[in-house]
Amino acid sequence: MRQLQWLRAKDYPRMPWKNGGGFTEEITRDAGDGLEGFGWRLSIADIEASGGFSTFAGYQRIITVLQGDGMRLTVDGQPSRPLVPFDAYAFSGESQVNCSLLGGAIRDFNLIYAPLRYRARLQWYHGGSRLFSAASTVLVFSGQAQLAVTIDGQLQPALGLYDCLHLSGNDRLLEVEVLGRCCVIELTALS
Amino acid sequence: MRQLQWLRAKDYPRMPWKNGGGFTEEITRDAGDGLEGFGWRLSIADIEASGGFSTFAGYQRIITVLQGDGMRLTVDGQPSRPLVPFDAYAFSGESQVNCSLLGGAIRDFNLIYAPLRYRARLQWYHGGSRLFSAASTVLVFSGQAQLAVTIDGQLQPALGLYDCLHLSGNDRLLEVEVLGRCCVIELTALS
Repeated sequence: MRQLQWLRAKDYPRMPWKNGGGFTEEITRDAGDGLEGFGWRLSIADIEASGGFSTFAGYQRIITVLQGDGMRLTVDGQPSRPLVPFDAYAFSGESQVNCSLLGGAIRDFNLIYAPLRYRARLQWYHGGSRLFSAASTVLVFSGQAQLAVTIDGQLQPALGLYDCLHLSGNDRLLEVEVLGRCCVIELTALS
Repeated sequence: MRQLQWLRAKDYPRMPWKNGGGFTEEITRDAGDGLEGFGWRLSIADIEASGGFSTFAGYQRIITVLQGDGMRLTVDGQPSRPLVPFDAYAFSGESQVNCSLLGGAIRDFNLIYAPLRYRARLQWYHGGSRLFSAASTVLVFSGQAQLAVTIDGQLQPALGLYDCLHLSGNDRLLEVEVLGRCCVIELTALS
């Protein structure tokens, strides 16, 4: 059965990293607790110092800088392009990853998912756009204040900065219109 | 195994409609012949006069005007908004559909697919955009001359107006960048 949830940024639980280099806020996930057992997870991280990332064997990651000058990642020894706000970058969770900040502290947005359990799609939007999707889960993560979203022509309650609309249990073609800066993540469990 | 095909608009087979109201050019499809047996099909149609559409029971359709003033559809008695170029519209193939041209002849672009056999996604792009997708089939239909597309950072041979890039057999997360006006269609067989 199709369900809609509005997740508010002020409610995201915030946890310091063990190594002291930053904080993570978890937005939502499919299942499990802590760093274990999820098939997919969305989170925000505040990175306060250059350093290594934790590995997530069996997972794929897509990271996007939200605020700050940006960062450059070194993934298994290969340098990424400079990653500036809203420029998404994919890498394997098994890779050895080191992050160098280009300036001061940054905030980033993360999708981590298990490709053996889910098929995923991610895209940033920067203005009005209409899409048709039959994914079973659709998440709209707002990158601005007062983001308007319509689903099948119905205007939804506005999303504030970093709020997230979570639609689950979909089994048919949806028309989604977004009117501003946001990231749309679409996930379907592999059967 | 992943495969790439470049389909050129000049090579699309062109067929007159039985009722004399227009022509269809087939771009590509998964399987079958004529109007039978396909799980999905992409085509272009030239509509020269207002009139009824054929029904396709068991199929979902998404139509986009490419050229001309536009049209308004009546779907099972309900009028659509005026459909102008690049404004995609979804409807059931089982519906009784009548088309009224807003002005002269139009050209349109059609996805028809069987939702019991495929999960589909469709979106028009009007400028540079990067997306991450794990769909097994990705089609990029060009809405301009000289469309540039990169896949996993590799620049592909340019697409001319109404040419189509057909990537099939994908089984992992792809990074696709499109640099101009195009429609991206993503399909995955349901198992």
